[in-house]
Amino acid sequence: MATFAVTYLLAVQKGEGVDKKIEQICLEQSAELPRKVLSKSIIDEVVGRPRGREQVADGRFKVVIEWPLANIGKEDIIQFLNLLYGNVSLQPGIQVVDVEWSALSEFFAGPQFGIEGIRSRYQITGRPMSATALKPLGSSSQKLADLAQQFARGGIDIIKDDHGIMDQKYAPFEERLTSCVSTLKEVAQKRGRKTYYFPNITAEAWEAEERYLRAAELGADGVLICPHITGLATMHRLARREEQLPIMAHPAFSGQLTMNELQGFAPSFLYGQLWRALGADFVIYPNTGGRFSYSLAQCKAINNCSRSSDLPFSPSWPTPAGGISVEKVRHWRNEYGPDTCLLIGGSLYKYAGGPEEAAKVFSKQLID
Amino acid sequence: MATFAVTYLLAVQKGEGVDKKIEQICLEQSAELPRKVLSKSIIDEVVGRPRGREQVADGRFKVVIEWPLANIGKEDIIQFLNLLYGNVSLQPGIQVVDVEWSALSEFFAGPQFGIEGIRSRYQITGRPMSATALKPLGSSSQKLADLAQQFARGGIDIIKDDHGIMDQKYAPFEERLTSCVSTLKEVAQKRGRKTYYFPNITAEAWEAEERYLRAAELGADGVLICPHITGLATMHRLARREEQLPIMAHPAFSGQLTMNELQGFAPSFLYGQLWRALGADFVIYPNTGGRFSYSLAQCKAINNCSRSSDLPFSPSWPTPAGGISVEKVRHWRNEYGPDTCLLIGGSLYKYAGGPEEAAKVFSKQLID
Repeated sequence: MATFAVTYLLAVQKGEGVDKKIEQICLEQSAELPRKVLSKSIIDEVVGRPRGREQVADGRFKVVIEWPLANIGKEDIIQFLNLLYGNVSLQPGIQVVDVEWSALSEFFAGPQFGIEGIRSRYQITGRPMSATALKPLGSSSQKLADLAQQFARGGIDIIKDDHGIMDQKYAPFEERLTSCVSTLKEVAQKRGRKTYYFPNITAEAWEAEERYLRAAELGADGVLICPHITGLATMHRLARREEQLPIMAHPAFSGQLTMNELQGFAPSFLYGQLWRALGADFVIYPNTGGRFSYSLAQCKAINNCSRSSDLPFSPSWPTPAGGISVEKVRHWRNEYGPDTCLLIGGSLYKYAGGPEEAAKVFSKQLID
Repeated sequence: MATFAVTYLLAVQKGEGVDKKIEQICLEQSAELPRKVLSKSIIDEVVGRPRGREQVADGRFKVVIEWPLANIGKEDIIQFLNLLYGNVSLQPGIQVVDVEWSALSEFFAGPQFGIEGIRSRYQITGRPMSATALKPLGSSSQKLADLAQQFARGGIDIIKDDHGIMDQKYAPFEERLTSCVSTLKEVAQKRGRKTYYFPNITAEAWEAEERYLRAAELGADGVLICPHITGLATMHRLARREEQLPIMAHPAFSGQLTMNELQGFAPSFLYGQLWRALGADFVIYPNTGGRFSYSLAQCKAINNCSRSSDLPFSPSWPTPAGGISVEKVRHWRNEYGPDTCLLIGGSLYKYAGGPEEAAKVFSKQLID
């Protein structure tokens, strides 16, 4: 019987019993009935089966459970997500840390480009990429395009919309898209080098697809999406479209899944594995040391997962954001290595010499 | 300037400072830049504004922040969700507990039927409703229809698919839908009283809409959906369709939002307020005392929010599930009152006298 394995980190209370907790997961995520009322064929063919376990600390166990592939319909990511973390999300002490992706490669496409694909498309070799965000919300399309112009003159590789800028009256989607594309085209003609623009298409599923198509049509170079607001399966759908726009995924509305080590997903699993399987070319995650909460070790684990050759998909660009000051780019470059996209927002806006100068300082530290 | 208010429960670490934390939310969820680089008009018209705060325990503060309505595009639920909990999901100690819905009634439609609408449509007065689930996953459509027949003969009001049964080969969606609808029609003709069938339409957004339409076309009485897998905005879209199928919402994949009191959403807010705003006629939540973790007080708070006349939407049916044994239905009826839909799964399957007898015992305790 074809199966795939999921690895969980369990926190077991005194008196709860690890075997009981494993049995509970095996049933909860499949038959959802007590074993004693199930037929032999359901037990043999539908219920999860523990494959191994290891005590990793006091009250903490790493456990592998095998699931029948037939419990997921053909190519159905929604059924996968439910099997992965549907009802057990409502029970404490269960964290998903790993999935056997090799058994699932017919379900997931992974990034269309990934690290090598983007390097070749954008002709950037051997160095990290630079990215920034257009903001604040409330600015006009013209104002945002002016900022884009300055960042591009300073040599930034990728400019994305702030993820909170969607289709408000301040800077409606299509007006903003047109302004930024045309401004960046002009700068590229002068500089002889392109800055790539990723408009934010985060919207209801149908509308996100519409905006993806408009972005492709009107000359954007990629798209930004918040998969936990628009829908994880929607990102995967877009990542397989023939218009082939690179996808940058933003972690808004995902923190509750990754900030409690007794529940949810390990950060390296969500950002480095699941998003990559779902087609994110760039994986934005909250960098350590800024206004968010991950440790350096957690950030490095995300980087390693995004780039690992153990997964049957192209590697994604880990894209740390937050807490990177423009003066310290070289530090992060050394810390994270060349296959990284550094995303700097606030520090460029605060820079005394203005956005263009800030972007130059940023870019110089990546090229030298 | 038109605004709406959100109430947060903050957990403030020693040395962190509550004012700093409030300021951080006001900026993070709007301009996403430090105040000192913002223009006066952005500060006046875009940034959140604290309206009040109250210390409720050591290190815990209840805080109200007012947000400009213009930060959300017209009728855009996705922009609302991002403003509500996008980036702050990645920062600890911030829990959403209340929203000023009266200011948002043009964005949210609420349930099409709600408690009174369902009572009138199904002709059920003055008593709680009974519901159960068809399972286990792995059963054929015929097997599930046979079970539906027995539950219906026993007098259950609503039969839904188990939320993990989607479109697997075991019981494909349309085959299962047709079998269950036709079986339940026969039973209704004999009994002179209808049992209502809610197939599970949880799928990728586009496919969920297709299944909703097939369910309407083929005679289903409502639909079950997992909004945290399919997408919160998708549920709202379906809740406004002219086919008018009542919607039962299932909490799979939502636990990480509601099981950590230092983060996410208060359970009463998510299940009793947000889901109601998004159009759930029935709000399934994990009942206390079973295999899930809420306290009786939390469950009662969900019930109160779902039914409260303070919201500008029809009330939803609180639908506690898990931990209700068929022998104790009267207890829960007394505990939760008549405007409740009691959902019992496992206990009906375990009942020694079989499903039909179990359903009779269940139903009798609601009618007497």
